[in-house]
Amino acid sequence: MQRINEAKLGDVIAPRDFGLDPVARVHALEFIDFLQTAYEDWKQCHGDSDAMPTCWPSRTLRQILPQEIDGKLSYYSFDAGTPITAGTWQAVTASVNVALTGAELIRSGKKTVFSACRPPGHHAGVDIYGGYCFFNNAAIAAQSLIDHGAERVALLDVDYHHGNGSQAIFYDRDDVLYVSLHGDPKQEFPYFLGYADETGSNSGKGFNRNFPMPWGTQWENYRESLDQGLKQIHRFSPDAMVVSLGVDTYEKDPISKFKLKSEHFLKLGDIIAKAIHCPSLFIMEGGYAVEDIGINVLNVLTGFINA
Amino acid sequence: MQRINEAKLGDVIAPRDFGLDPVARVHALEFIDFLQTAYEDWKQCHGDSDAMPTCWPSRTLRQILPQEIDGKLSYYSFDAGTPITAGTWQAVTASVNVALTGAELIRSGKKTVFSACRPPGHHAGVDIYGGYCFFNNAAIAAQSLIDHGAERVALLDVDYHHGNGSQAIFYDRDDVLYVSLHGDPKQEFPYFLGYADETGSNSGKGFNRNFPMPWGTQWENYRESLDQGLKQIHRFSPDAMVVSLGVDTYEKDPISKFKLKSEHFLKLGDIIAKAIHCPSLFIMEGGYAVEDIGINVLNVLTGFINA
Repeated sequence: MQRINEAKLGDVIAPRDFGLDPVARVHALEFIDFLQTAYEDWKQCHGDSDAMPTCWPSRTLRQILPQEIDGKLSYYSFDAGTPITAGTWQAVTASVNVALTGAELIRSGKKTVFSACRPPGHHAGVDIYGGYCFFNNAAIAAQSLIDHGAERVALLDVDYHHGNGSQAIFYDRDDVLYVSLHGDPKQEFPYFLGYADETGSNSGKGFNRNFPMPWGTQWENYRESLDQGLKQIHRFSPDAMVVSLGVDTYEKDPISKFKLKSEHFLKLGDIIAKAIHCPSLFIMEGGYAVEDIGINVLNVLTGFINA
Repeated sequence: MQRINEAKLGDVIAPRDFGLDPVARVHALEFIDFLQTAYEDWKQCHGDSDAMPTCWPSRTLRQILPQEIDGKLSYYSFDAGTPITAGTWQAVTASVNVALTGAELIRSGKKTVFSACRPPGHHAGVDIYGGYCFFNNAAIAAQSLIDHGAERVALLDVDYHHGNGSQAIFYDRDDVLYVSLHGDPKQEFPYFLGYADETGSNSGKGFNRNFPMPWGTQWENYRESLDQGLKQIHRFSPDAMVVSLGVDTYEKDPISKFKLKSEHFLKLGDIIAKAIHCPSLFIMEGGYAVEDIGINVLNVLTGFINA
């Protein structure tokens, strides 16, 4: 926020409250209910500590919702690094409102909006959380654009990690095209989705495109995948675009292994803007080199606006 | 061991080494290979620390084996409480040898053998570990009895937790009857298997019986399920029985919620012996009230032998 304010990039406004109806267009009602009470349920059993799952319904195990909180955490999550804390519900609902406020601005005619969402969202599926994500801000924003009249929305995901939640939410649909550039799941979280052979199913066939890239990928190769992904989006001719903006493709990101430099984020914004001409909502996803998140995000947005 | 030695229950012998062939009769080769090298692979990436998975291929995610160690841990496990340490491989192979030495003694004519296995095994499936279990000692012992001529082996699981691995391993088969008494998975780990409606599949239909019981179950109700389970085993007319012996049904167990007292373990052994008349191999599974594990295990064995 400091970087954005300094650069006078545009008006900075607070989100308004959209309630849970737009969330329920993407997430299952019982999952929303679970998240709303999970911390209190946990606290009653375990006291005031982070709520963590213990196990997962993986191979050979059944997808059955248990009745106690420990089992519910295990059912609804897919990783061991996403605690639910006293502030989680407040944070995730605020984050969704930031995304939905962005979507509303796009609908009202803005060409470019940045939603500074925290926590991120692209790993969250219809009824599953993980990867620091609970509600899928980008998917909820895309759905809200559809629900207000957009016929086709492109969801471009440039976070270092594959947005397994976003893909799964729209996998059967032809009105939201999901295009993701990310670390190869053979090597990287979330490991079990994001392969190139996942192209959509049923009427969604052809409306999902993954560009997994190996550890050590540099800008030149990244750019080739970006060009291909943008061609897909251009052909789709979207009414609006949502960009899941992670800057963990950065060379100094402590948990990621791509080699983009800060200057490449300027180019990233520029290239996207020159390829796709429709109102665009940028939603903040990952980025763990905290010192440089500001400049890298600012570079993408500046590159995009000034293209 | 101290309790067993004091009681002069029988000869105490060291295991002999059976190699990995009997393990491969139950577990997938690539899973065995993974466990054998997992700690070294982890150490090369992360240094000398416990190897832990990060996420799991749960709903919406694919069952694909990743290529790096972090992803492999995530693929091959189903919980976050089962670290792989420097000593894991040595411990799990020793534990299997303890079980197989027990099975060999049964084949050679012994009527009752106790295999003091550590770590336990009943949560481990063909290619999945968790619940402190890596190789399924009881399943490997049962399979070894089959492979040496037994036509029918009963596997009675009295651990507080459902033996999801054992069930899954034999679910399609009619030569191993799996009967389990345990905390209802609606409330208890492993949450996603162990329900009463799981009765086997294909030729294994009818050869799996679960008796889930609620938190707070006392001896009187436990005994009713036990009687029913033993009737199933009696009708099956096994050539040998393997008992997955957990004593975490104990009232003072710190992570479990049944209410058996030490004296009930004497009765448990007595009732099993009077119902089932075939060579019986007891395999140690769980039990977390460490002070009283000795007396409780001794009680089961004494009750059984003196019936």
